[in-house]
Amino acid sequence: MKPILVFQTDFTYKEGAICAMYGVVKSVDRELEIIDGTHEIPQYDTWSASYRLFQSMKFWPDGTVFVSVVDPGVGTPRKASVAKTSDGYYVVTPDNGSLTHLKRWVGIEEIREIDESVNRLRGKDTEGVAIFHGRDLFGYCAARLASGIISFGEVGPSYPVDEIVEHELREPEMKDGVMHAHIEIGDPNFGNLWTNVPLNTFTSAGFAYGEHIQLVIRYQGEERFNKVLLFEKSFGYADKGQPMIYNNELMRIALAVNQGSFEKTYDLGYGEGWTLEFRKFVHD
Amino acid sequence: MKPILVFQTDFTYKEGAICAMYGVVKSVDRELEIIDGTHEIPQYDTWSASYRLFQSMKFWPDGTVFVSVVDPGVGTPRKASVAKTSDGYYVVTPDNGSLTHLKRWVGIEEIREIDESVNRLRGKDTEGVAIFHGRDLFGYCAARLASGIISFGEVGPSYPVDEIVEHELREPEMKDGVMHAHIEIGDPNFGNLWTNVPLNTFTSAGFAYGEHIQLVIRYQGEERFNKVLLFEKSFGYADKGQPMIYNNELMRIALAVNQGSFEKTYDLGYGEGWTLEFRKFVHD
Amino acid sequence: MKPILVFQTDFTYKEGAICAMYGVVKSVDRELEIIDGTHEIPQYDTWSASYRLFQSMKFWPDGTVFVSVVDPGVGTPRKASVAKTSDGYYVVTPDNGSLTHLKRWVGIEEIREIDESVNRLRGKDTEGVAIFHGRDLFGYCAARLASGIISFGEVGPSYPVDEIVEHELREPEMKDGVMHAHIEIGDPNFGNLWTNVPLNTFTSAGFAYGEHIQLVIRYQGEERFNKVLLFEKSFGYADKGQPMIYNNELMRIALAVNQGSFEKTYDLGYGEGWTLEFRKFVHD
Repeated sequence: MKPILVFQTDFTYKEGAICAMYGVVKSVDRELEIIDGTHEIPQYDTWSASYRLFQSMKFWPDGTVFVSVVDPGVGTPRKASVAKTSDGYYVVTPDNGSLTHLKRWVGIEEIREIDESVNRLRGKDTEGVAIFHGRDLFGYCAARLASGIISFGEVGPSYPVDEIVEHELREPEMKDGVMHAHIEIGDPNFGNLWTNVPLNTFTSAGFAYGEHIQLVIRYQGEERFNKVLLFEKSFGYADKGQPMIYNNELMRIALAVNQGSFEKTYDLGYGEGWTLEFRKFVHD
Repeated sequence: MKPILVFQTDFTYKEGAICAMYGVVKSVDRELEIIDGTHEIPQYDTWSASYRLFQSMKFWPDGTVFVSVVDPGVGTPRKASVAKTSDGYYVVTPDNGSLTHLKRWVGIEEIREIDESVNRLRGKDTEGVAIFHGRDLFGYCAARLASGIISFGEVGPSYPVDEIVEHELREPEMKDGVMHAHIEIGDPNFGNLWTNVPLNTFTSAGFAYGEHIQLVIRYQGEERFNKVLLFEKSFGYADKGQPMIYNNELMRIALAVNQGSFEKTYDLGYGEGWTLEFRKFVHD
Repeated sequence: MKPILVFQTDFTYKEGAICAMYGVVKSVDRELEIIDGTHEIPQYDTWSASYRLFQSMKFWPDGTVFVSVVDPGVGTPRKASVAKTSDGYYVVTPDNGSLTHLKRWVGIEEIREIDESVNRLRGKDTEGVAIFHGRDLFGYCAARLASGIISFGEVGPSYPVDEIVEHELREPEMKDGVMHAHIEIGDPNFGNLWTNVPLNTFTSAGFAYGEHIQLVIRYQGEERFNKVLLFEKSFGYADKGQPMIYNNELMRIALAVNQGSFEKTYDLGYGEGWTLEFRKFVHD
């Protein structure tokens, strides 16, 4: 059975771009199965693209081909690539930071730059188009790979894995009884915030379910949140509307308001500049 | 042919949750066909989840498996269940009110609580996760059922249908020439409001297409709308921008502005507290 | 292999309409493949419906059946039709302007009005419903056509192609060294604006990549934008946040801000009343 194609982009469904891109895939091979990963990655946000690949990939069958098109540099010399992960998936993507988490936390076995002379759509009045690589390059090449028309080796020339463009990934640090951490990403639907602290690291540092923990959140050093929160394994342990610390679906420490939005309630964000300090709460 | 899986959630496509959930399904059985019902149920709104199941289910082939994950109580003792309807569909859902309309208007033949010791995803670093039952429990169990790996009987132990958690459903009432009714739900796209009055009930009470009808809308008893409206079978009978009463796609009385939003134009809502009075309009 | 069904509507996924419509399709024939084109066409905007069909259709396999339901006149005498294009696609749509661009730029070979006595859903308590033709008429008829249950001839009686309802399409005009043009449509995600000037027309008129061009935008004659812009083949040639002129994915001249929104940055729009003047920039 041919591998599934899973797409993620920042295109949204507001106009006809995805429809055109999927048409190209089906014109390469009618049998290919296309799944929407998401088309609502924040615009130009290659960090989120990277995180969403990491978040969902391991749940798919071996050999699944992911196509990630968040491409602020389209038409510039950034590489258009296909990576093979250590656990056997393929990712077709601009090499612009979108492979950061997979490279660090899963491993990239090999990466190849797409040879446009072979693996780019011809005809259909697309020859002079320099801006829609989702349709003309990434989607088309991914379809050829999944269909078996080309092998991974025929994507184009390989290049060293350590040349892959990466964002900085920060690790949490326990110092003097304080867990220093970062807010890695949000859940833009429910408003939860996800930290870079694995559950294991957190519990090994002495924090335990059922306890109350003092959390300080700073933005660029300035205090923006300071509360004592319950740490539990699910939202239902907090009263409705109450903030809490929990273990998220990727086994990492996260922040929520039960049936509410942590991000909006406290006017917080994620990414560069947002830092956390967790301390055991000692009752007076 | 294996039954189709139709999913509805309040997850949206803003992050990677749906992608992970669908990956689990495809890892259970590559052949399973997945259809998006909707992922834009209002957050935690089990009433809407229930209504949307009722609204669309009967149009699907017999045996279709619906997965509904609107789950404010995830991680609390609410039951995770699979219901079999009287007309032969399956619904995999938390038992939290999401089965209200199907139970009353279609009928639930049997309901079983999912046995987590058998029908929950293992591995993939999910063992300590208590919050994402869409991925680890509902999606996984539904895939096993649709695939034929387990029978309905193997979902888990059955429990009495009359223990199913239900919201209150109100019936319209004709009294002294006035039809007293409720706004059951809205169409959040076009802004129409749907009442709990079946067309048959309405016409049996003496209201007829082509007539003008006086409609009073109250919120918690206070008058919010009072106009004489045309009752017709489609929007085009009213001028553009004019309000009207019509027969909706589920053969129930509804309120619209032709090519506009009834809900926004008159600043109205639906659910608890919103009541209606329809009266024959007698010209002076 | 049966043709694919590609759907576009203005329904959104906010409620259960699409789910019901797709259920009808799958009940006609389980084997049919359904693809979301988009369900976010602006409400009642038959111009956008027409443009999106044109934008994506040619990338699909021959014989693909498009279903376009943007239908402000549902329940009025507008025709419900199936068109066959000169390049071998089918479009199931209300005949309300949604075929404008295909008729002019691709060609309609034949058009037939759907015979409701044969090709309309029966049963399921839909007999008295006059408002949801996406489910009961367009989706149902398209499924029968794609499945091979009916031939194109069995859709219903054909009528003259020149009776098809059309919006006005304007052509650009070069006069006294000025290219007079219109903004045809926007990209509501990235905020680019697309003109009605083909790249060939533009370059034949003497404009060339790498040059700076003076652009004046007027709304109803009043000047709303007046700047000298770089004309290049991709966004990356402009600095981040800078406006530019580029060649879009349909080989037409378009306006962008690199990694920003041209439409929002300059508070502009598209459609009736928005006119453009391109002039060679002569440095003092």
